[in-house]
Amino acid sequence: MEKNRLEAFSDGVIAIIITIMVLEMKVPHGNDFAALKPVLPIFLSYVLSFVYVGIYWSNHHHMLHVTKRVNGPILWANLHLLFWLSLFPFTTGWIGENQLASMPTATYGWVLLMAAVSYWVLQRAIIRQQGTTSLLAQAVGNDWKGKLSPALYAAAIPLAFVSPWLANSVFVLVALIWLIPDRRIERVLPRHQS
Amino acid sequence: MEKNRLEAFSDGVIAIIITIMVLEMKVPHGNDFAALKPVLPIFLSYVLSFVYVGIYWSNHHHMLHVTKRVNGPILWANLHLLFWLSLFPFTTGWIGENQLASMPTATYGWVLLMAAVSYWVLQRAIIRQQGTTSLLAQAVGNDWKGKLSPALYAAAIPLAFVSPWLANSVFVLVALIWLIPDRRIERVLPRHQS
Amino acid sequence: MEKNRLEAFSDGVIAIIITIMVLEMKVPHGNDFAALKPVLPIFLSYVLSFVYVGIYWSNHHHMLHVTKRVNGPILWANLHLLFWLSLFPFTTGWIGENQLASMPTATYGWVLLMAAVSYWVLQRAIIRQQGTTSLLAQAVGNDWKGKLSPALYAAAIPLAFVSPWLANSVFVLVALIWLIPDRRIERVLPRHQS
Amino acid sequence: MEKNRLEAFSDGVIAIIITIMVLEMKVPHGNDFAALKPVLPIFLSYVLSFVYVGIYWSNHHHMLHVTKRVNGPILWANLHLLFWLSLFPFTTGWIGENQLASMPTATYGWVLLMAAVSYWVLQRAIIRQQGTTSLLAQAVGNDWKGKLSPALYAAAIPLAFVSPWLANSVFVLVALIWLIPDRRIERVLPRHQS
Repeated sequence: MEKNRLEAFSDGVIAIIITIMVLEMKVPHGNDFAALKPVLPIFLSYVLSFVYVGIYWSNHHHMLHVTKRVNGPILWANLHLLFWLSLFPFTTGWIGENQLASMPTATYGWVLLMAAVSYWVLQRAIIRQQGTTSLLAQAVGNDWKGKLSPALYAAAIPLAFVSPWLANSVFVLVALIWLIPDRRIERVLPRHQS
Repeated sequence: MEKNRLEAFSDGVIAIIITIMVLEMKVPHGNDFAALKPVLPIFLSYVLSFVYVGIYWSNHHHMLHVTKRVNGPILWANLHLLFWLSLFPFTTGWIGENQLASMPTATYGWVLLMAAVSYWVLQRAIIRQQGTTSLLAQAVGNDWKGKLSPALYAAAIPLAFVSPWLANSVFVLVALIWLIPDRRIERVLPRHQS
Repeated sequence: MEKNRLEAFSDGVIAIIITIMVLEMKVPHGNDFAALKPVLPIFLSYVLSFVYVGIYWSNHHHMLHVTKRVNGPILWANLHLLFWLSLFPFTTGWIGENQLASMPTATYGWVLLMAAVSYWVLQRAIIRQQGTTSLLAQAVGNDWKGKLSPALYAAAIPLAFVSPWLANSVFVLVALIWLIPDRRIERVLPRHQS
Repeated sequence: MEKNRLEAFSDGVIAIIITIMVLEMKVPHGNDFAALKPVLPIFLSYVLSFVYVGIYWSNHHHMLHVTKRVNGPILWANLHLLFWLSLFPFTTGWIGENQLASMPTATYGWVLLMAAVSYWVLQRAIIRQQGTTSLLAQAVGNDWKGKLSPALYAAAIPLAFVSPWLANSVFVLVALIWLIPDRRIERVLPRHQS
């Protein structure tokens, strides 16, 4: 089975997810600065979710790049990841509308956690098919980011009921960790292509 | 006529269908656990429909993979399938908002039935163009899943007026039947590629 | 300039148009057959518009297939066509919600007319770039469908204020004319490919 | 890293942005000409934004066409551009609903400004990776349009509080400047391809 359509379909779904999130920012009825104020927390949660979906797309892009063929388990692990990503617009809208209240924050963390777990499952499915000596297996290495992130999300869920602000800071922190350029796959590639 | 654009267009439409279904899960106004409760049946119907659309995409992916060229009838049979799939967000939202009442359940079953029929029509159109000795004709074989599913959907429609829960269980059951890995096309392919 | 991205972008836009039209069919609040009744005219207008967008996609697919390169005018003529197609969800929703009243019907006809005109402009732009001896110029031939359709749409606009039902019948009729398999491009192709 | 998926993903996001803007044009409840009147300013702002997104897509298309490989900074500069473009539906809806009031006009200008800046950042990131002797560096040249536009947007923001109509005229003017065929890349290409 070829990977092209899997990439194209994932690109389509991720492109729609990242774009429909903005629909949660309802056009305000007033036309002054005050009318923009209730939109601000929704805007901030949109920015954070945009960055997260961007990180997922970028990592997915890299991972599929070193994947040669796909099989049934990879296809379904990929759909499983897309399912959790598809809940981002809902949780982003909920957290934004309630100015980062406890329950929406915990739900946001739970969806982040499930997305991270399903990404890991997809990565395992690909490595199992490609072999442990594959490019991806080497590129992933000890994968400290992939292990740290779900632990931090899991910690942020109960934290949301103590201090939603602290829990949301954890989400921002994890996003920043991933934004630091990750050259693992780019570093391994030239060695093999030359 | 090349099949690439047919695949790309179908991927686009299916990607949008699978993603806009989540828009039926309206962001709740409250911010506690109680606010999530009315979302739960909508969430469950979303999960079921996501799995169904995923199954259709996966089967469509396999079927087009062994299709070499497309003609007018294939193109329109494909649009016909996409039409019925495009009604999933509507029926999913309706069934979810009414906690699986009779009429929405029957409507859901009817759209599932029409999607199954239109998939079968598309399959026939491709086999007619490829020939009965084609890869697809061999891969499809006796196609017990493709014959059993519409029968079960058709049975679930009147059943919805007796017990909507039983009818919905039938829909879950059929989805599970399809999730069991179907290696028909994957099994036939290597024989011909080697 | 390559045509691939033009095709991919057009596929994306058309796929979204054809799919978001279904969002105009709001999930009814009741759960019986009566709740479905107000949805019926919206459903019918959705079916008609789905067929129209399908026809445009299919013709666009054929036309771009015999196009080798694209230039600035083609690119903008294509965006112009997509603009008018993007108004289909609006006019479809309006005509559906008002059970085919005069003004919505006339507006629907006007958008159909402008889409037909912009399609013709795109066709001219491609032929101008490909040359009058090109495949497309030959395939288009006298193009009676392309000339008859805008005339019928234009006639249907004033007709909508006399009898909206008659005007809508014209729209159905034109759709049927296009659904009759059009083998012009398919007929010319093999001659040149063999 | 290959550029194909970057193009495909960008096409997807831009296609969705350009299409969901039309959802801000809510179907009116009346069915006469008066019902269309409040839709008119929303329609006009939709036309302007459609042209702007079309210009961005066209320029993006040209720029990526002369880009050979993408790296991390290019990927993120591209996501940054898509982020600002994704705010177009929101600002378009806001400006349209308030008949071009001051604050929505200024916000519209601000998003246009940020989009222009992020496009420039993406252009720099590509040139940095391709080298200053690259096709793109030559094609861009002194880039007067790319320098004039943000200056005009920045001037239009305070102007919006004096005369929103004048500020909106600036936006229309800049769109017209870009619509004038820009043959820079097309002019440089043949020289290098022959």
